Amino acid sequence: MTDAESLVTRVRDGDLRLHELEEHADAETAATARRLYVEQEADVDLSVTGEYALDAEQASGSAIENMIGATQIPVGVAGPVEVAGGDADGEYLLPLATTEGALLASVNRGLSVIRSAGGASARVTKEGMTRAPVFRVDGVVEAAETVEWVRENVDALREAAESTTSHGELMDVTPYVVGDSVFLRFRYDTKDAMGMNMATIATEEAVGVVEAETPASLVALSGNMCTDKKPAAINAVEGRGRSVTADVEIPGEVVEERLHTTASAIAEANTRKNLVGSAKAGSLGFNAQAANVVAAAFLATGQDEAQVVEGANAITTVEERDGDLYASVSLASLEVGTVGGGTKLSTQSEALEVLGFAGGGDPPGSNARALAEVIAVGALAGELSLLAALASNHLASAHEDLGR
Amino acid sequence: MTDAESLVTRVRDGDLRLHELEEHADAETAATARRLYVEQEADVDLSVTGEYALDAEQASGSAIENMIGATQIPVGVAGPVEVAGGDADGEYLLPLATTEGALLASVNRGLSVIRSAGGASARVTKEGMTRAPVFRVDGVVEAAETVEWVRENVDALREAAESTTSHGELMDVTPYVVGDSVFLRFRYDTKDAMGMNMATIATEEAVGVVEAETPASLVALSGNMCTDKKPAAINAVEGRGRSVTADVEIPGEVVEERLHTTASAIAEANTRKNLVGSAKAGSLGFNAQAANVVAAAFLATGQDEAQVVEGANAITTVEERDGDLYASVSLASLEVGTVGGGTKLSTQSEALEVLGFAGGGDPPGSNARALAEVIAVGALAGELSLLAALASNHLASAHEDLGR
Amino acid sequence: MTDAESLVTRVRDGDLRLHELEEHADAETAATARRLYVEQEADVDLSVTGEYALDAEQASGSAIENMIGATQIPVGVAGPVEVAGGDADGEYLLPLATTEGALLASVNRGLSVIRSAGGASARVTKEGMTRAPVFRVDGVVEAAETVEWVRENVDALREAAESTTSHGELMDVTPYVVGDSVFLRFRYDTKDAMGMNMATIATEEAVGVVEAETPASLVALSGNMCTDKKPAAINAVEGRGRSVTADVEIPGEVVEERLHTTASAIAEANTRKNLVGSAKAGSLGFNAQAANVVAAAFLATGQDEAQVVEGANAITTVEERDGDLYASVSLASLEVGTVGGGTKLSTQSEALEVLGFAGGGDPPGSNARALAEVIAVGALAGELSLLAALASNHLASAHEDLGR
Amino acid sequence: MTDAESLVTRVRDGDLRLHELEEHADAETAATARRLYVEQEADVDLSVTGEYALDAEQASGSAIENMIGATQIPVGVAGPVEVAGGDADGEYLLPLATTEGALLASVNRGLSVIRSAGGASARVTKEGMTRAPVFRVDGVVEAAETVEWVRENVDALREAAESTTSHGELMDVTPYVVGDSVFLRFRYDTKDAMGMNMATIATEEAVGVVEAETPASLVALSGNMCTDKKPAAINAVEGRGRSVTADVEIPGEVVEERLHTTASAIAEANTRKNLVGSAKAGSLGFNAQAANVVAAAFLATGQDEAQVVEGANAITTVEERDGDLYASVSLASLEVGTVGGGTKLSTQSEALEVLGFAGGGDPPGSNARALAEVIAVGALAGELSLLAALASNHLASAHEDLGR
Repeated sequence: MTDAESLVTRVRDGDLRLHELEEHADAETAATARRLYVEQEADVDLSVTGEYALDAEQASGSAIENMIGATQIPVGVAGPVEVAGGDADGEYLLPLATTEGALLASVNRGLSVIRSAGGASARVTKEGMTRAPVFRVDGVVEAAETVEWVRENVDALREAAESTTSHGELMDVTPYVVGDSVFLRFRYDTKDAMGMNMATIATEEAVGVVEAETPASLVALSGNMCTDKKPAAINAVEGRGRSVTADVEIPGEVVEERLHTTASAIAEANTRKNLVGSAKAGSLGFNAQAANVVAAAFLATGQDEAQVVEGANAITTVEERDGDLYASVSLASLEVGTVGGGTKLSTQSEALEVLGFAGGGDPPGSNARALAEVIAVGALAGELSLLAALASNHLASAHEDLGR
Repeated sequence: MTDAESLVTRVRDGDLRLHELEEHADAETAATARRLYVEQEADVDLSVTGEYALDAEQASGSAIENMIGATQIPVGVAGPVEVAGGDADGEYLLPLATTEGALLASVNRGLSVIRSAGGASARVTKEGMTRAPVFRVDGVVEAAETVEWVRENVDALREAAESTTSHGELMDVTPYVVGDSVFLRFRYDTKDAMGMNMATIATEEAVGVVEAETPASLVALSGNMCTDKKPAAINAVEGRGRSVTADVEIPGEVVEERLHTTASAIAEANTRKNLVGSAKAGSLGFNAQAANVVAAAFLATGQDEAQVVEGANAITTVEERDGDLYASVSLASLEVGTVGGGTKLSTQSEALEVLGFAGGGDPPGSNARALAEVIAVGALAGELSLLAALASNHLASAHEDLGR
Repeated sequence: MTDAESLVTRVRDGDLRLHELEEHADAETAATARRLYVEQEADVDLSVTGEYALDAEQASGSAIENMIGATQIPVGVAGPVEVAGGDADGEYLLPLATTEGALLASVNRGLSVIRSAGGASARVTKEGMTRAPVFRVDGVVEAAETVEWVRENVDALREAAESTTSHGELMDVTPYVVGDSVFLRFRYDTKDAMGMNMATIATEEAVGVVEAETPASLVALSGNMCTDKKPAAINAVEGRGRSVTADVEIPGEVVEERLHTTASAIAEANTRKNLVGSAKAGSLGFNAQAANVVAAAFLATGQDEAQVVEGANAITTVEERDGDLYASVSLASLEVGTVGGGTKLSTQSEALEVLGFAGGGDPPGSNARALAEVIAVGALAGELSLLAALASNHLASAHEDLGR
Repeated sequence: MTDAESLVTRVRDGDLRLHELEEHADAETAATARRLYVEQEADVDLSVTGEYALDAEQASGSAIENMIGATQIPVGVAGPVEVAGGDADGEYLLPLATTEGALLASVNRGLSVIRSAGGASARVTKEGMTRAPVFRVDGVVEAAETVEWVRENVDALREAAESTTSHGELMDVTPYVVGDSVFLRFRYDTKDAMGMNMATIATEEAVGVVEAETPASLVALSGNMCTDKKPAAINAVEGRGRSVTADVEIPGEVVEERLHTTASAIAEANTRKNLVGSAKAGSLGFNAQAANVVAAAFLATGQDEAQVVEGANAITTVEERDGDLYASVSLASLEVGTVGGGTKLSTQSEALEVLGFAGGGDPPGSNARALAEVIAVGALAGELSLLAALASNHLASAHEDLGR
């Protein structure tokens, strides 16, 4: 009987609970035991799930509980593409992990066209990770009192918040009142970390000061005005993580030769689909497939996969400029980091190395901003490629129209 | 010189392009060559990325292009939990793949509490995958003419659409007019498939009929009123994929013993955070962390990761009922399938086997609905667990208040 | 002591309450007494408020309580303009009541340009007044049961609903589930009435059937998915009242001579402001000033002023077509009527007479649709005029740029 | 032949255009002539429209063009109610102009209940009128450059902006980037004026500085991120005009005796309708009928009627507190003034006098804030009254349930 088998026996005997195995064995043995147990319970074969290459100790320690193995997502590279960013600067191969066939080819085609146009520009125009606790007050009189105190005492809140972190900096605190609820949206510079944890811990400390000095009592450390992992206008408008734009100007000849359509046809598709269609759908996302690229880049580089939700808050614009094509994509709330979280896992860390952005940047924050810029260029490539595919179909149908 | 090395040489010589390797070698060799090339180009070590267990041939054929290996995401199981659904029925272990530490433990705690309460109920209350092309017309006169034709000829559109699929059924077509753009939102029963491709192909066929019979010309096969992978009200209101609700009633004693708080404290946290906070944030998501559970379940079971965007369109409600706790989560647009796409990959297929939902259901559609129901119960568990954590903190702070 | 003065004395003596005066005197005397009382209480002079020409009896009977007189809003006419609508057909002068200087001149300029272009087209592409009660059920099992019953028993609901009205017709009922709340959105053809009251009364009757046949209990006859007088995506997407589009194609020479700018400059202003700017603002309105025209036309013609909220759910599109200008405005949820409510008041009725739409149409509904079409053309005129003003300024600034 | 008749003849002869009459006669004669002309053209009788009491000269000079008379809207008073505000302080009668029967009675009932509870509290928690021009730049590189310049040169923008106004003060400027469009949201303290015009003129001056110092070129002085008269999340989240909350705590006995229901029944109706129902509708308004009260108060006091759109961005909350009822309404973007615009007209000015808020306040801004607070209390009354009506019906139906 292997160690794993004996753990399974103890679970069956009611001696151990399934989530306690790591207390009685090393992480790999615990995962093996748990997988065995599940195989028996569900009468299934989990052999591929068990054939993982990641470090179980590391994964169990920080990324997962109740581990049984690993899910394997195929990963590829798109590019290279030249990026002239505020922090990214040079040629990049973009790793993308996905199970959606044709996505990588689509981004690759777009990047290739961008390369033919001399590369894309990119800039982070706003940054800051937010956390917004909600407090209970007696009513609007106390709410107004609390808001006034907060507006006049940001320094005290900063001191408390920053006492918990060696890197993070409190940028500002914005109060909102709804009846007897007060929300305070704290915004932090979290450097190369995505920063959710840093922001949460710092805010918890500042909350103590608010509770001590005002009539407000904490109800929830996150009051949903942060807003984390929900599609919310506050992020689309004010940004969260990095607000980043990438753009490119593509000569008309390149559009015709490589994309088999024209700048004006792509502009029309963008206007009717991404602007008017999204408007009519009551959307916060005015783009074709930004989420596809964000999701695949997030998976490959160890970002928080659920934050794809905010990553989809993107607006794509396309104009004809004297026969040439100008295209941009602006991602309002791209939450990325190059340290912490999933970025430490083996395959994810390798993907960051491919980009040259693994770990903390010099100066701090520059790696995370550069990653945001390259992902934005990837999203731009996806937009161009899909819009061109739609527009060239439409040219086809236009030709058929003429014939009938 | 290995086969892979010789491919790399040919790429360096300009003889082959990086995306053409699969034309000259089997999928695994091509991936190895491409990985080698990237390792040299970026001066990095991708050995863990190369240590994959998935079937390269299968992955390259349908899930990725430009493959270099696999990203490994740790996967665990939460539960078991009893689900009394419309299609799910019994005890389930829920596989979740994530890199966010504490998520799995949180869901597991929630499921354990639900189990103590006798399990959760779940129902799919609406279903249908949508695709909405946008057409150009001359103006509103032609737009009205097109809309009228469509309303009177749904049968002709159905015939065309269904000629492309052996399983899919056209449920309805809803027209929308904005100036000289006409959008037609086609909705399909796609059975156990998530159905995006089926819906796209069927719609393309129906579009031909629209173009032949009306003045409308296709501009884009997707006009963003579908809405795929963008946070859009149309999905939150009308649904897409499966609209699924899970709920549970938990005795007051269980809430106190297991969650260390009360039904009314959890209800208050839900109201101030998930309802009022989300309202004030201009959100389409009124929940605490539904996207976390959706993302992790999607990854584990081979769903389309970018569709987490719509998966976050969820509303959580909590009430005190005579000291007991009623909680529900309603996911408006959960797009899941048990056949096609990433569900065929090895580890993903194994995860579906754990649930017992791999492949087509009997009757068709029942597996995908059951999967939606179990994910909804997982999301409910995540909500309960996080709300309880927030509420018990708040009780703590309330106690401190009394002391000062 | 006049009758009015003696009523005031009785109020002061506590013998009567301020809202009971109509029970003791004719409407005009009651209003006079109440005005006197307010003048004394607040020490003000309300003589102009008292100098009204409307019929106090009629107003007190149906439009107001606690009347003290009338607010006078200056009213003017814009136009004439040729409208080729589905129901409107001919030349119209549009009455507009407003206190915003320059609005009427702006609409008038726009209508004049439209006239030079041969008039505008307009069509109602969807109609139906909605009311959506919310019900309580025990949980999702009962919710699913209720939804299923409703889907299968629309005829029974129709019979009940239509028993309360000689004109209204139930078009459809759409169910929505959120946890233990079920919303049923009833949609009615209300002919020439705006129809809120008709819809409410009919729905109340149908609700009785739902409560008798399903486990659902009514919580509120309006559950806010109607949605009345709140800015809600459901109306912007699905429509409420009339969904109406107006458009026009204006020769390039007319744009230059009359609007002092070009089609492409106006198109650019529309794209950056009305599409991209509104997108970035998280807006449900993608227009320049549709609400101004809707509000002024509503005031003049006796519509419900608070429904301007939904009237602002409008999308404006502008394209250059070979140097000419195509412009459209699509109002998703314009709630108008020509019978009932404020349309019966003297000045409001006179304004409807100017348009030729007072009272019930032949066929029923045609007057209300025609009114929607003419208001849409007025809104189009306002868009053109304001966009042209912005675009010509911008040309001016462009000229200055060249000079610096 | 009267002067008016001779003007009509000149119009018919093509000698004058309809909008030029004021250049050839006093305002009243011009209005009479225009009315005559319309009566003849449309073959209608506009005698009541012509029987107006407002000052035609004043109206024509600032509030309307092409005047033909006045629309008369019945006006009444609700209250009195005690308001303990930041600026409002004392008992107020609220003038409301409407054509919607039962509205005034509903507000009056609510105010009466609030009065029984000792009055309501109210506070303005944020203020500032905004204007957001949109600029064109070459691309994101120039966009980032422009944003950086603006962030570092707010003082220069302030100097320019404030040079145009003796009262207004520039509070801040927030930049937003979407591709090659830059939006700058200027926010002003406009004291007792609603301030749209002041903000527009001041911004125009500041725009000159931006154009001189950065690569940005103005496209439109309003780029829709202001956002004026469109339902936009930016206003619901960040506020515009005044963000004002009113609340009240009502003893349980008062709820039962006066509203014939219970605190918990009203709380339930509010949660299911105003919170959950609005959430599911994709709404920016989480209230029952705030727009009704805002519209009627705006009409009576000379506010801009189209700004009811933003006025509907309100959240209503209701809680049971040990059997008592706590209720609040928070209006995020209530745009009101007591000087300028329609406030100068006779009947509107009289209504402001009833409130004691006509003209500029001492200190400046206090009258406008006080008006906002009283309107918020009126809105609160409307919410209470309608929710109670719904809740007591529901009790009735609950009783019937028991009986069946």
